[in-house]
Amino acid sequence: MKKLSLEIVSRALKLPVCEGDSLAEKIEEAGIPLSTYCRKRGVCGKCFVEIVRGDIPPPTEKESLLMRQKKMPARSRLSCLYKIRGSLAVKIPRGSLFRETNILTTGLRMSVVVNPPVKKYLLKVLSPRILNPASALELVEEGLKRKGLRVPLPLLRKLPALLQDTQGRLTAVIFDEEEILALEAGDTTGKNYGIAIDLGTTTVVVELVDLQTGATVDLATALNSQSRFGSDVVSRISHAFLSDQNLEDLRLSIVRQLNSLIHEMGERNHIPKSSLYEVVVAGNTTMNHLLLGLPVKTLAVAPFNAVFSSLDEFPAIELGLELNEQAKAFIVPNIKSFVGGDISAGILASDLARRPGNFVFIDLGTNGEIVLKKGKSLWATSTAAGPAFEGMNISSGMLALPGAIYKAELGKKLDVFTIGDRAPIGICGTGLIDLLALFKKKGDITPQGKIVPASRILPVTEGITITQKDVREVQLAIAAVKTGVRMMLEKGGLDPEDLDGILIAGAFGNYLNVRNSQAIGLLPAIARKKIVFIGNASLSGAKELLLSSPSRKFLKKMIKSVTHVSLAADPEFQKKFIESLEFPEVDP
Amino acid sequence: MKKLSLEIVSRALKLPVCEGDSLAEKIEEAGIPLSTYCRKRGVCGKCFVEIVRGDIPPPTEKESLLMRQKKMPARSRLSCLYKIRGSLAVKIPRGSLFRETNILTTGLRMSVVVNPPVKKYLLKVLSPRILNPASALELVEEGLKRKGLRVPLPLLRKLPALLQDTQGRLTAVIFDEEEILALEAGDTTGKNYGIAIDLGTTTVVVELVDLQTGATVDLATALNSQSRFGSDVVSRISHAFLSDQNLEDLRLSIVRQLNSLIHEMGERNHIPKSSLYEVVVAGNTTMNHLLLGLPVKTLAVAPFNAVFSSLDEFPAIELGLELNEQAKAFIVPNIKSFVGGDISAGILASDLARRPGNFVFIDLGTNGEIVLKKGKSLWATSTAAGPAFEGMNISSGMLALPGAIYKAELGKKLDVFTIGDRAPIGICGTGLIDLLALFKKKGDITPQGKIVPASRILPVTEGITITQKDVREVQLAIAAVKTGVRMMLEKGGLDPEDLDGILIAGAFGNYLNVRNSQAIGLLPAIARKKIVFIGNASLSGAKELLLSSPSRKFLKKMIKSVTHVSLAADPEFQKKFIESLEFPEVDP
Repeated sequence: MKKLSLEIVSRALKLPVCEGDSLAEKIEEAGIPLSTYCRKRGVCGKCFVEIVRGDIPPPTEKESLLMRQKKMPARSRLSCLYKIRGSLAVKIPRGSLFRETNILTTGLRMSVVVNPPVKKYLLKVLSPRILNPASALELVEEGLKRKGLRVPLPLLRKLPALLQDTQGRLTAVIFDEEEILALEAGDTTGKNYGIAIDLGTTTVVVELVDLQTGATVDLATALNSQSRFGSDVVSRISHAFLSDQNLEDLRLSIVRQLNSLIHEMGERNHIPKSSLYEVVVAGNTTMNHLLLGLPVKTLAVAPFNAVFSSLDEFPAIELGLELNEQAKAFIVPNIKSFVGGDISAGILASDLARRPGNFVFIDLGTNGEIVLKKGKSLWATSTAAGPAFEGMNISSGMLALPGAIYKAELGKKLDVFTIGDRAPIGICGTGLIDLLALFKKKGDITPQGKIVPASRILPVTEGITITQKDVREVQLAIAAVKTGVRMMLEKGGLDPEDLDGILIAGAFGNYLNVRNSQAIGLLPAIARKKIVFIGNASLSGAKELLLSSPSRKFLKKMIKSVTHVSLAADPEFQKKFIESLEFPEVDP
Repeated sequence: MKKLSLEIVSRALKLPVCEGDSLAEKIEEAGIPLSTYCRKRGVCGKCFVEIVRGDIPPPTEKESLLMRQKKMPARSRLSCLYKIRGSLAVKIPRGSLFRETNILTTGLRMSVVVNPPVKKYLLKVLSPRILNPASALELVEEGLKRKGLRVPLPLLRKLPALLQDTQGRLTAVIFDEEEILALEAGDTTGKNYGIAIDLGTTTVVVELVDLQTGATVDLATALNSQSRFGSDVVSRISHAFLSDQNLEDLRLSIVRQLNSLIHEMGERNHIPKSSLYEVVVAGNTTMNHLLLGLPVKTLAVAPFNAVFSSLDEFPAIELGLELNEQAKAFIVPNIKSFVGGDISAGILASDLARRPGNFVFIDLGTNGEIVLKKGKSLWATSTAAGPAFEGMNISSGMLALPGAIYKAELGKKLDVFTIGDRAPIGICGTGLIDLLALFKKKGDITPQGKIVPASRILPVTEGITITQKDVREVQLAIAAVKTGVRMMLEKGGLDPEDLDGILIAGAFGNYLNVRNSQAIGLLPAIARKKIVFIGNASLSGAKELLLSSPSRKFLKKMIKSVTHVSLAADPEFQKKFIESLEFPEVDP
């Protein structure tokens, strides 16, 4: 066979190729992230290259159409359709490369290639022929180079009129390469949006994502409207438990809130709900159950089993969410009852499963979820830290809202900092950690947690104090996390110093002072640079799942490999928990 | 390896086997149709054998449960779970063999193994365990030995209460081994029903089928209620064409009629609609489109393309049919515009594709659909015979209803026979054929179709005559079919005598006189024993598709291999059509 060469001038690369090779495949083999959005079927028109030297076959009808539309140079051809006939040199325009988008922006920078489950393709549907009169649906499938696509009946009913009105020029919205979600007149390929949701017990974050570019279009945050039925998971389960109507009230409350947040973002950005084709929800197990309207009774009593762990994508309309009528919903699967979809999403966003080395991933909230990664294995557990870190059951405690003391420093006197620089009205979780560490350093609190001054009250600032009971509450919360991390490390046969890193997820982490956290024993005393805050990894994971079909496939498989560890069932737990109640003797 | 033997005493068979072999597989290899309904997962309990001699391991929990329930001898074991350890002898009870059921009962006897897409399994769902608290859905999947089953949200919402109320004893209804359609309290495995429909332009036949035994429970026939909008396909298309409301009226008319027929049969047989899990509809392309509420405009104008050819199963509720809320609907796929699902079903029921030899399959109606099978190839076409065979456009014509002359004989005088032995009120298709053949034999009609008596009117019986125009109408209808068959044979390079058979489908066939049909040229002059009437093959095919998952998979593949022949587009057609207008010179 003749020896041929392919020169990629934009990268100063020269590769040996053979006659008959696919140009697109050769470019990919050279490690260049060529956009093969439609899986090299010549349908999406994203992999154009400019033939600088060599054979230029006449363009196909599709290529001519796309070249006019995209104003490409005349020497451009779709590399997925190009079979190599002789040596050639090509230039790859930037637009023909897969876009990457950042999903984690704090701590670790993680990016993802934009390759969403929901894709749009511009089609020129051919007219039927007298000799072989293909059906309208078959003609659409021909345009998509796919067969046996599922199509909803309402779309099929509109299809003939749509083909007539548009003279066959339409955009198909395809889910997972197997289902037509929508058929739209003309070229709407630029308008493809989805919604990523971090559904927390306290806070709800909704992100409007551009599925073509991967960009975040808008973000909205709100307190979970279910809070009026109970501030924590347990009180909401108890409420739902009492009657079916209560469960329905909880469901409707969150559904309406999500619809209103989505609607507001749509209005603000002039994006109609019909352009929203998928929603991905990452929440803890209880929040997922309440959103789905599933009974939560079994989550409250031993053995604490959920109704489901993972579900396939289903119509968003079944949730009551107002997106495109055929939009899909994906609930990020739980690992087990108390290790929910928010943690699965966090594991994904931090690439924990594929990160070389030994890591602990901690999500600090009412439940402290802990994931240990060692070698190729993942173990996950959940500890009942209680709501102290969210300011609950603390005399001056509050959520991390404006006016909350989130940080404290000890100079000549005690300096406190509040969110929004307002007059202090209470203390949130990170503030509590700082204050306890500082009071301990001053000697106002013993390592056993006893307040030394006879008043048993430590003044913080005007009207705000820390009581002996407050210290006890925080000690319990810390001990839960500390015991959890300790037992997980034992499970993996690791000492803290064997860890390559501790990844801390949750909005909480943004303000957490590592030195103070180590001083009171919340975090192990390892090198501080190994402790990384990764922000809202649950939301980042939801966004990644919206943007990347391969990530979604990876997640579905990955979560099945996670081993669930039930700490409460371990007879050692109680003993170690009591040992963990004391603060460390020495500061780090 | 030790040489072991397996003796099947109920069949007087002895086979060599190896240690570790699966008993079920060895029995199947011996050609015995063992019921492996659950695909050998030990779930359905249908493949029990009695171990007459040899190793009997202790029964599993499932086996004990099933043995008690089915009152099996203590030496019985599920052959799918049994691994061979030493030589053994077994007896296979009749109940462990796959049932067969007849689907075609006239002409050719065809039977099918009952192995439906909708299956029921009795489960004992285990309780969750504290150390590894599987979700309720996972526990159900464990019972089914399947993972990642799709489950509708409403079912998931009821699941915890159902598990509690039944102590885990429930019946799962599974579609195509991948989706849970229903979860029912206790053992309902004996109540699994489906509906097969032959949706004809003139007549609708609805069959209630037991999906466990394959038996027909009940059958209902009615005139298609859409007839009031137009008696034939063309007039209904024209009506639908005028407004969206008309299309909706046509849709609702047939949906309501089907619901009412299904409801009546359910009442009569004490089968609630919740026990109906699937409906299969075989109809011509226009009838399918109208049932689905699809625009039919393109069916009326060249190139006569349909909106769809084949669709995956979808929820029956989307059609408006009242079965179980999660029931499925399957529309038997069309081959091309004018060769509809009724023909696909007929090809299946007659096993045309796999039948060795050369065959012509004819479905006589307003359209005469003709399928030629030669070697491994299938060609299909449709000829516009017009409604003469249904008695339309004939002076004394009528449908095959009570009082219609369906048969005539020439003795000393002309004897006519009517349906229901009533006073004659008109002539239906088969009667017309007999009468024309007899008048031609008597010399009252020339081979050119001219009526000899000067009156140009042939009296049949009191008040009923045949006019010159009537003869011309029938000549046109015959010529369409005759030309079709002739051109299809030419396509295959065959002479009529090369045929191994002509299969005639349609209720029409039941009364058709072969000699008279040959005398007027409707059927080729081949040996009469080669001409077989197979009855309502469309309904038989629908029933087979309801009962056999392998048949459904076969059909989906098979129809793609059929080559559509467009006779109207062939320049030879007009010439041959005119040649075919003459009756044969000599009688057969």
